[in-house]
Amino acid sequence: MKGAQLIYGVHAVRALLLRHPERVLELRVAASRNDPRALELERLARERDRPVVRVDAESLRRELGEAVHQGVAARVTPLPPWSEDELLEALAPAANPLILALDGVQDPHNLGACLRTADACGALAVIVPRDRAAQLTPAARKVAAGAAESVALATVTNLVRTLKILKDAGLWVFGAAADASRAAHEADLRGGAVLVLGAEGTGLRQLTRQSCDVLLRLPQLGTVESLNVSVAAGMLLYEAVRQRSIAAGSP
Amino acid sequence: MKGAQLIYGVHAVRALLLRHPERVLELRVAASRNDPRALELERLARERDRPVVRVDAESLRRELGEAVHQGVAARVTPLPPWSEDELLEALAPAANPLILALDGVQDPHNLGACLRTADACGALAVIVPRDRAAQLTPAARKVAAGAAESVALATVTNLVRTLKILKDAGLWVFGAAADASRAAHEADLRGGAVLVLGAEGTGLRQLTRQSCDVLLRLPQLGTVESLNVSVAAGMLLYEAVRQRSIAAGSP
Repeated sequence: MKGAQLIYGVHAVRALLLRHPERVLELRVAASRNDPRALELERLARERDRPVVRVDAESLRRELGEAVHQGVAARVTPLPPWSEDELLEALAPAANPLILALDGVQDPHNLGACLRTADACGALAVIVPRDRAAQLTPAARKVAAGAAESVALATVTNLVRTLKILKDAGLWVFGAAADASRAAHEADLRGGAVLVLGAEGTGLRQLTRQSCDVLLRLPQLGTVESLNVSVAAGMLLYEAVRQRSIAAGSP
Repeated sequence: MKGAQLIYGVHAVRALLLRHPERVLELRVAASRNDPRALELERLARERDRPVVRVDAESLRRELGEAVHQGVAARVTPLPPWSEDELLEALAPAANPLILALDGVQDPHNLGACLRTADACGALAVIVPRDRAAQLTPAARKVAAGAAESVALATVTNLVRTLKILKDAGLWVFGAAADASRAAHEADLRGGAVLVLGAEGTGLRQLTRQSCDVLLRLPQLGTVESLNVSVAAGMLLYEAVRQRSIAAGSP
């Protein structure tokens, strides 16, 4: 199928079979894997009428390069980008959703890295403006290491307007800014939150900055001007996850 | 000079002029900059007998590409890698040093990204094994965005032995492990600390893992198996900086 993507690794493939079996076109399992975890994946796929193919390890290696695939992969239909409406629909059932928004991030590698980190931190979606921003190119998907098929990318026409709608929906909008007086850990990130990051060096655009409820700063103790945007996203998302895990009493 | 590197940005150049003027071969300032911050850099350079050259903005752009150089750059002698002995010498005067150690990280981009983040978080050094690990290639320096000239890279023969020496010197060694029972924020990272990260997917090697005082986990809520190593480093370093800023009473 045109545009089909490969997801790999036991955990990633299992999550897709459970959550979005309709997107799995084919499960591919290395011939050598006959352990309980691999057999469970086969069972899950068959129960959901998904084809299962046994392949030799070498062909998986050819397809996936040096990625740590654990002898398991799935061909999946790509996750289509969400519109603003789809983003808002997804918000309703989510408890304290965590969303990442990227303002003017141009590099597809950075977008891919942000998707991967957003996935690890349980974010609902990553928002990017439709124009003048990195899109989900093959390079971005590769760096995302599968996360482009699990975290939704929402492309919006006007980021400032979307932030306003999200605020009206009850979320707090936090922007990362080098000159903010408040450190990230001084904000309460436990409720529904949008974390907004600007491009490296230039930061948030003025209108985006004005759309934030609170500006937060991240460590800047060294001699270099700014953090890489995916690392900054990782720190902010980490802080939100930390606060939420303490609040939940299960650190 | 062979191997000379360009550092750019007001903050980075100023820090080098103040801390390591002997490494500055030449200060380059855009002809258009006559503001107090640029003039202060000129004064600092002249006081330290460093040559100052006025250049046109276009030539800076050619040299630095799209980097945000703010019209200021310095040609500097590269920071040579530290030996284990030099690392230990640097430890003595440091209060609660923070060190990053990378176990089996092969990708120069990841090494560069880790150096940049280590710089932002005030780390003393980044340790890598001399063999079978990424070294400070031009690609690594580029991704480090100047941090390769400000944070020392210590290359050691035997990482496990170095960790033992650092433990004997009073530092705590914390390893990142996906299966750790303790979350990063549950450890006390305020004292002298070495944060050890393994390669993506495979994690810490067995002997390295056994050398750690405490194993810590980072957020893994999504479907993708592991965080990018530079993002994981960013989260652990962020957590250490957060704890230290609270301890210092200046968040």
